[in-house]
Amino acid sequence: MARELPDLATYLRDRAALVEAALERLLPPAGALPARIHEAMRYSTLGGGKRLRPILFLAAAEACGASPSGLLTPACSVELVHAYSLVHDDLPCMDDDDFRRGQPSCHRAFGEAMAVLAGDALLTLAFDVLARPIPGVPEARQLRAVAELARAAGTGGLIGGQVDDLAAEGRVLDIDELQDISRRKTGALFQAAVRCGALLAGAGDAEIEALTGYAREFGLAFQITDDILDAGSGLAGPSDPRKEKATFPALVGLDASRRMARAAAERARAHLAPFGARGTRLAELVEWMAARQG
Amino acid sequence: MARELPDLATYLRDRAALVEAALERLLPPAGALPARIHEAMRYSTLGGGKRLRPILFLAAAEACGASPSGLLTPACSVELVHAYSLVHDDLPCMDDDDFRRGQPSCHRAFGEAMAVLAGDALLTLAFDVLARPIPGVPEARQLRAVAELARAAGTGGLIGGQVDDLAAEGRVLDIDELQDISRRKTGALFQAAVRCGALLAGAGDAEIEALTGYAREFGLAFQITDDILDAGSGLAGPSDPRKEKATFPALVGLDASRRMARAAAERARAHLAPFGARGTRLAELVEWMAARQG
Repeated sequence: MARELPDLATYLRDRAALVEAALERLLPPAGALPARIHEAMRYSTLGGGKRLRPILFLAAAEACGASPSGLLTPACSVELVHAYSLVHDDLPCMDDDDFRRGQPSCHRAFGEAMAVLAGDALLTLAFDVLARPIPGVPEARQLRAVAELARAAGTGGLIGGQVDDLAAEGRVLDIDELQDISRRKTGALFQAAVRCGALLAGAGDAEIEALTGYAREFGLAFQITDDILDAGSGLAGPSDPRKEKATFPALVGLDASRRMARAAAERARAHLAPFGARGTRLAELVEWMAARQG
Repeated sequence: MARELPDLATYLRDRAALVEAALERLLPPAGALPARIHEAMRYSTLGGGKRLRPILFLAAAEACGASPSGLLTPACSVELVHAYSLVHDDLPCMDDDDFRRGQPSCHRAFGEAMAVLAGDALLTLAFDVLARPIPGVPEARQLRAVAELARAAGTGGLIGGQVDDLAAEGRVLDIDELQDISRRKTGALFQAAVRCGALLAGAGDAEIEALTGYAREFGLAFQITDDILDAGSGLAGPSDPRKEKATFPALVGLDASRRMARAAAERARAHLAPFGARGTRLAELVEWMAARQG
């Protein structure tokens, strides 16, 4: 793997730059009226983040034989949903986080009303962006992708996970409950990313199912690794240390968490067997994910 | 008109009942997990309202020659967007309304976090519902409808209008500014309703444009009439009387407002000329709208 890792690092950097440029183009200009909300949307979306979800979207499409160049715009839809969810999760009535990526969170910078509306607008823009014509892609496929994204973002996915996460605050969860919340709050959008990418690439049901299994394990590996990194950063993190949240290291310890992340990554790779060499990038991505230090 | 009005009253009641039943079916059952958010979504959507937006959606589709029976599900998408916008508008950080239709508003009944999430979920469900397969409707048409709804709900429409409405609180607007805010905050969703209905009915560009003009004037007549009725109810209304909001009667007086509403209704009817007899319901609807007492 040592030989291939620099390659992946370049790939990740290049893809993130492509996604950043596309987001820059898709978000309304900061000067367009009403300017304040466009500033808030851009503040909350641009200039940071690994862009993992659109990168997975594009990698899944490539694994199914499509060229990524025509799919950059729809791939941004999953990043816009991700950005919206962070803005709303940070609100005082939710997780009450004053900082995000080391900067004041949206409601700290723009006020609460603007943060609610900017989140609403990012969610809305995600569907706008996903519904734009894509040369060479049948509209029936695109419509299925819209439905996929809506389901993943709804109460059976992202929003449902956040509801249960809020309800769990201060309560002791068991590992099954924690995995169930993580599967929805984090996993559903990873699944939508690969499923939408595969759908727009014209993938068959078997390919879509295999990628769904991959994304499920990817999401789990991601969440566990995130929890491990948060635990490593201790109380120095930006979040309010008074808010006890269930995490994998807190429940099963650091060593068992690392083993769980590695096992999830292994299962994710196993789902890629049908893709042969075309699945290499996806395999590298989950490998890197489970081993990352930041 | 006296002869036809009872007919319209029955039509409005029947259509509202059809929409109510469809919403009841489309919203997740209150018992489905996570139950609390599904309760909040149902609380904020069911059991009230004139269902004007889906009724316009269906009437526009019929004016373009379609049968409404197959379009009830997509027609509900505009009502779900409307319901979401009311839930978020009522939040303490926005208009801070404790009551909605004489009942505690969503955040008063379910808490602020749940109201933010229930609004998010209603918006998300709108796109889910609009993207479901419709027998006999080409997917390309449906995809255009998704894009229409997203644009109307975004910062160029509904959200942008709310941003400027919040920014205008306590400031004196002129009539042009007030019309501009109303055109986006109220009008954009009426326009999306008729445009989506027409699109799914297979309408041509000329029909869609005529209906867009109709809806623009319908929205204006609706907003002015709403303001007149609010003014008539005085300070006994549920909203906080300390919050001065610009209204048409406050700016130009009651009589001029009534004339403006009537003129907008006339202009709306003029847009229906190309539809001949098929436009009768739409003509009755705007006539009734501008004359309504509640």
